[in-house]
Amino acid sequence: MRILVVNPNTTVSMTEKAAEAARLVAATGTEIIAATAAMGPASIEGHYDGALALPGLLDAIRAGEAAGAQAAVIACFDDTGLDAARSLASIPVLGLCESALVTAGFLAQRFTVVTTLERSRVLLENLTRHYGFGGRAKVRAADIPVLDLEKEGSGALDKLRHQIERALAEDGAEAIVLGCAGMADLAYELQSIYHVPVVDGVSAAVKQAEALIAQRLTTSKRGSYAAPLAKPYAGMLSGFAPAASA
Amino acid sequence: MRILVVNPNTTVSMTEKAAEAARLVAATGTEIIAATAAMGPASIEGHYDGALALPGLLDAIRAGEAAGAQAAVIACFDDTGLDAARSLASIPVLGLCESALVTAGFLAQRFTVVTTLERSRVLLENLTRHYGFGGRAKVRAADIPVLDLEKEGSGALDKLRHQIERALAEDGAEAIVLGCAGMADLAYELQSIYHVPVVDGVSAAVKQAEALIAQRLTTSKRGSYAAPLAKPYAGMLSGFAPAASA
Amino acid sequence: MRILVVNPNTTVSMTEKAAEAARLVAATGTEIIAATAAMGPASIEGHYDGALALPGLLDAIRAGEAAGAQAAVIACFDDTGLDAARSLASIPVLGLCESALVTAGFLAQRFTVVTTLERSRVLLENLTRHYGFGGRAKVRAADIPVLDLEKEGSGALDKLRHQIERALAEDGAEAIVLGCAGMADLAYELQSIYHVPVVDGVSAAVKQAEALIAQRLTTSKRGSYAAPLAKPYAGMLSGFAPAASA
Amino acid sequence: MRILVVNPNTTVSMTEKAAEAARLVAATGTEIIAATAAMGPASIEGHYDGALALPGLLDAIRAGEAAGAQAAVIACFDDTGLDAARSLASIPVLGLCESALVTAGFLAQRFTVVTTLERSRVLLENLTRHYGFGGRAKVRAADIPVLDLEKEGSGALDKLRHQIERALAEDGAEAIVLGCAGMADLAYELQSIYHVPVVDGVSAAVKQAEALIAQRLTTSKRGSYAAPLAKPYAGMLSGFAPAASA
Amino acid sequence: MRILVVNPNTTVSMTEKAAEAARLVAATGTEIIAATAAMGPASIEGHYDGALALPGLLDAIRAGEAAGAQAAVIACFDDTGLDAARSLASIPVLGLCESALVTAGFLAQRFTVVTTLERSRVLLENLTRHYGFGGRAKVRAADIPVLDLEKEGSGALDKLRHQIERALAEDGAEAIVLGCAGMADLAYELQSIYHVPVVDGVSAAVKQAEALIAQRLTTSKRGSYAAPLAKPYAGMLSGFAPAASA
Amino acid sequence: MRILVVNPNTTVSMTEKAAEAARLVAATGTEIIAATAAMGPASIEGHYDGALALPGLLDAIRAGEAAGAQAAVIACFDDTGLDAARSLASIPVLGLCESALVTAGFLAQRFTVVTTLERSRVLLENLTRHYGFGGRAKVRAADIPVLDLEKEGSGALDKLRHQIERALAEDGAEAIVLGCAGMADLAYELQSIYHVPVVDGVSAAVKQAEALIAQRLTTSKRGSYAAPLAKPYAGMLSGFAPAASA
Repeated sequence: MRILVVNPNTTVSMTEKAAEAARLVAATGTEIIAATAAMGPASIEGHYDGALALPGLLDAIRAGEAAGAQAAVIACFDDTGLDAARSLASIPVLGLCESALVTAGFLAQRFTVVTTLERSRVLLENLTRHYGFGGRAKVRAADIPVLDLEKEGSGALDKLRHQIERALAEDGAEAIVLGCAGMADLAYELQSIYHVPVVDGVSAAVKQAEALIAQRLTTSKRGSYAAPLAKPYAGMLSGFAPAASA
Repeated sequence: MRILVVNPNTTVSMTEKAAEAARLVAATGTEIIAATAAMGPASIEGHYDGALALPGLLDAIRAGEAAGAQAAVIACFDDTGLDAARSLASIPVLGLCESALVTAGFLAQRFTVVTTLERSRVLLENLTRHYGFGGRAKVRAADIPVLDLEKEGSGALDKLRHQIERALAEDGAEAIVLGCAGMADLAYELQSIYHVPVVDGVSAAVKQAEALIAQRLTTSKRGSYAAPLAKPYAGMLSGFAPAASA
Repeated sequence: MRILVVNPNTTVSMTEKAAEAARLVAATGTEIIAATAAMGPASIEGHYDGALALPGLLDAIRAGEAAGAQAAVIACFDDTGLDAARSLASIPVLGLCESALVTAGFLAQRFTVVTTLERSRVLLENLTRHYGFGGRAKVRAADIPVLDLEKEGSGALDKLRHQIERALAEDGAEAIVLGCAGMADLAYELQSIYHVPVVDGVSAAVKQAEALIAQRLTTSKRGSYAAPLAKPYAGMLSGFAPAASA
Repeated sequence: MRILVVNPNTTVSMTEKAAEAARLVAATGTEIIAATAAMGPASIEGHYDGALALPGLLDAIRAGEAAGAQAAVIACFDDTGLDAARSLASIPVLGLCESALVTAGFLAQRFTVVTTLERSRVLLENLTRHYGFGGRAKVRAADIPVLDLEKEGSGALDKLRHQIERALAEDGAEAIVLGCAGMADLAYELQSIYHVPVVDGVSAAVKQAEALIAQRLTTSKRGSYAAPLAKPYAGMLSGFAPAASA
Repeated sequence: MRILVVNPNTTVSMTEKAAEAARLVAATGTEIIAATAAMGPASIEGHYDGALALPGLLDAIRAGEAAGAQAAVIACFDDTGLDAARSLASIPVLGLCESALVTAGFLAQRFTVVTTLERSRVLLENLTRHYGFGGRAKVRAADIPVLDLEKEGSGALDKLRHQIERALAEDGAEAIVLGCAGMADLAYELQSIYHVPVVDGVSAAVKQAEALIAQRLTTSKRGSYAAPLAKPYAGMLSGFAPAASA
Repeated sequence: MRILVVNPNTTVSMTEKAAEAARLVAATGTEIIAATAAMGPASIEGHYDGALALPGLLDAIRAGEAAGAQAAVIACFDDTGLDAARSLASIPVLGLCESALVTAGFLAQRFTVVTTLERSRVLLENLTRHYGFGGRAKVRAADIPVLDLEKEGSGALDKLRHQIERALAEDGAEAIVLGCAGMADLAYELQSIYHVPVVDGVSAAVKQAEALIAQRLTTSKRGSYAAPLAKPYAGMLSGFAPAASA
């Protein structure tokens, strides 16, 4: 199997971390192809960054599918561009948030997502509701700028641990979901400290990608995710116009 | 008052229709400034078009605010880019779907949104839930390509009327919401035919914009819609990088 | 435009305060006609007062419509009698709670309503759910008897500020809604103190009234709000019997 | 036990029918005291009638409690004035809709309420949601003016049966709830025809009243249903002012 | 009337306590028949105990119906086996949780269930949602092993009171529901201490059983609760095979 | 990896079919161990069968874990005993319904579950709500006795196809979920006929089991799924008593 992992921001060290997490859980014979968005923001913190990450993300997915990927993972916990990517691609596309929530849902009745910045908290709260976990999952923000997760000595881990401890003490959390792709390397360590399941979205999404490929399942093209209709696109984005055959 | 009406697709005739609807309901002394996205798709039909409409839309909003607009309306019923625009701008930003739903909600307990294509139906159904109207509003698709609304003799009006009649007969609809900016010119005529309120999103959003300006209210910058953080943007989109002062 | 603002309790100073707030935001050319209920409770604190406020309220709405009002605002945050008034009148009728919630909803993802007495808290919580804001709005009671809002030195403002501060610190509130018509004069001051949107229901409802008039929209008479059927009414209330032509 | 059954409309034949249904199910030793509202509409069909029925209803409840009733039933399926009555009285107060829904809920997972007029359908749909049965109960209107239920040869029973048959065939209904106090005499006959539980609200509410009395339970006076605060009431309604001791 | 009260665990002292609570509220002429499960766990604490309590419970219900019971109460607050029992029996079957929630719902808008162990908390939270009380009822666990309720000096009452006091202070509870059959003897005392309604599930369920019998209502056999189909059962459970006539 | 697939009914041909489906999708190196319940019903059709299937199911899971299984799949679409099994086992346990719903959720916004008998329809509807898919998934029953799926010439496939066709035409289904373990062999064929994703629960659950093992995740023992407490079990079920060390 060949699975594309796209980092929708332009920071290569985050792509590498996601790829490493992906390879750690991938089945024997699964090839992980990592890609970094070629345009857009250096990190995705809130709605504006998320919007401008879309062209780079969609470009990488189109290229990855053309190069033979059988499934794609969008390595951002906001599930940025997930619906657009599912419409564009004929291969299945997985998001971190959706994958991590359903994974945690197999292990616990109640759990808490710990994300980076307050500005992403409600965004993720809305996603948990959209995916049907509104009554089961809480969301906490740890006040960590995303790129601090790439820096030694930033204090990011301490802040993350503080919110995990509050989730266990105050939320009745039975499991923890790490709410940022940049935390992918921390899951095992945190799990061994807190003795509850700690779910990383990159790992979860890669395994869902393998699962769909093995079941010969791909995105429905009936209704919501129908392929884009051919039409002109103007200006700087004219290269993104859907082909007539789509 | 000065209100910006942005058409996030690149079809100028749709911009003109929206501007006309806006001017028809605007208060004396309100100036409507119409803008068309300078890049992106000719119409927004589904998630992929919606994603690629964002740079052009956000650019137009930034320019409009800089030119003195006191509020902005995004003239697409999918509320494309609404959260990103609210984060970006310091003026209030209105979407057609949210504005039309709350307007219909003042007039009727149950109503039906009639939109263009089946691929947009579930997208709008999800929006109605997100805005809290899941139990009150149904969504129907009339199988009308968006640009057919710009063409005489396309049969678009007949298809629209057929779904309105089904909504009244089968859904218990007490009012109708027109689910596409391209239908903005049809509301009064349909209202006079069917004797129920027929809500157009452009008109509704313009009046909400005026209402917010008059109340000296603007988007909260605490939490979800905090201004974008300064950071590098790469490639073709480098010009979109948020300024350090944001 | 001519808009009726009805105070459903019998305290004239509250009517005057609401009228003042209404005039402050009304568009040039909008005439605000204020009316006070001629019978019923001096303030509305809980369900019993609310029930007995209805005859006076409905009487004032009928009279106001007969005198040429094009829309009516019920100046009580409980939206007392809103459904009955919408059935009775052929002009649109707005409530403070519904108007304020949708206004706040354009500005923030999460917000808190601060009302007067604990006995009104759950009542408003149920209204926020009914209007579709159950997942977005919290309700707090500040332990203020309604008529204390009319008295200098009652400590009401301090109590209100205390709950606003708790909402910002504990609820993740991005905006505040003032949950009583008697607070209409405080919105701008509180907004300047706390730097988040502070929404007053009277102002919000008046602007919605103008918006509906401008769009030539009025309450649907199909289904829920059909005009009352002619029938005898007995006793003290016989004068309220719907006319045969209704 | 002494249970008050109040008909909130002024039609005595409906009071008698409700009293008869109440006596049929009451336990040995339970005395049913029937009362008819002394003022207000001859039947309750929609929100306006419901609003004007409140003074007569609340007056009858106050008088009934003073005369020694240990619980009260409001014999209208709209649960008109239920919250106000619970605030006013120190004895428990039951509504037909709430009582019938919970009764049906013990017998079936899915059921349908059949009511009289279309204008009451959404009102009852909202009540079913408020009581937590939104996902389990459907509501149908049979196009029967309420007072036709009092007339031989009105065709009311045929219309009712037609909707019951549609509920069984189309809604997956496992039980039927009769959605008007005026249908109280029809439950057993319909149950024997259709072989599914048919629940009458008057019977259900009377049994709930007995159940609460036997358990020595009454309405909580903490929070939502706190007793009305003493204050002046003006005009025609001055006699309704809460006593200072309340 | 003859009502069966089945204790689905095998601890006889709990059966006796439930029977006593049942007799205290039963109407004159109602006979309470108590039964203890003949196989399975000594107490039900969590999902595993609940699963293994089912054969003993269902056996007791079958025997009780054969012996002439007209309704059955399952005396466990988890409503263990309620759906299976309703499918099996032709008499109505009541659960403690469902009965107590609807009873509290007649008395208060918001209330708190206090149960024994943390492992049962989410289970009951899910039940409250299933029964439609998700927005009205909170659940607290008092850290009391079930059988401690049978022991003098275990400290169970103090733990229970501590959580009731927190519910009143922190949850806005207007009433309390005792969340374990083993607390059936404490309701009146706690009600006199805290001056809010305190609902015991055994009492509530017995009165619902009487109510259904008096109304000649029983479980619908259409759809969800259709009688078990005849088929072979293997091994130790072969005696449970449904009869062909079922 | 070693994954246990337990058929909770006693029909060996269904176990074999499930095992075959499991092996078809399992990764290289995954060993599927199939087990059939040693006691209980020959098929699970409704709540009563489901209750009596639990001892046999839990016994098989305990034995499978003792024999070295790293995860378990309960091969019944009702997710019979899933919570009890998760409490009992220290390995992860997957249900078909939960696994299939989340799988379909990656591929489509709206889909329909087609199950066997009407008596299972509402049961599955409740499960879809519990898992958070209430707004996305519809459930249809095809009127197929479960064991007819094992018989050539029973007409079962035609009935199933009829409901799939109605789901596509009437429900707006974008994908189909097969709602019975006995349909596991039909997914690929139906997918090739209807050109939408057709999800089989056995396949979906096996892949989820592999995913959890690869991520080193197992059921949280904090809260809802805490291990059973040691206590005596009486009678025929005494062998099921949890060990003291649990």
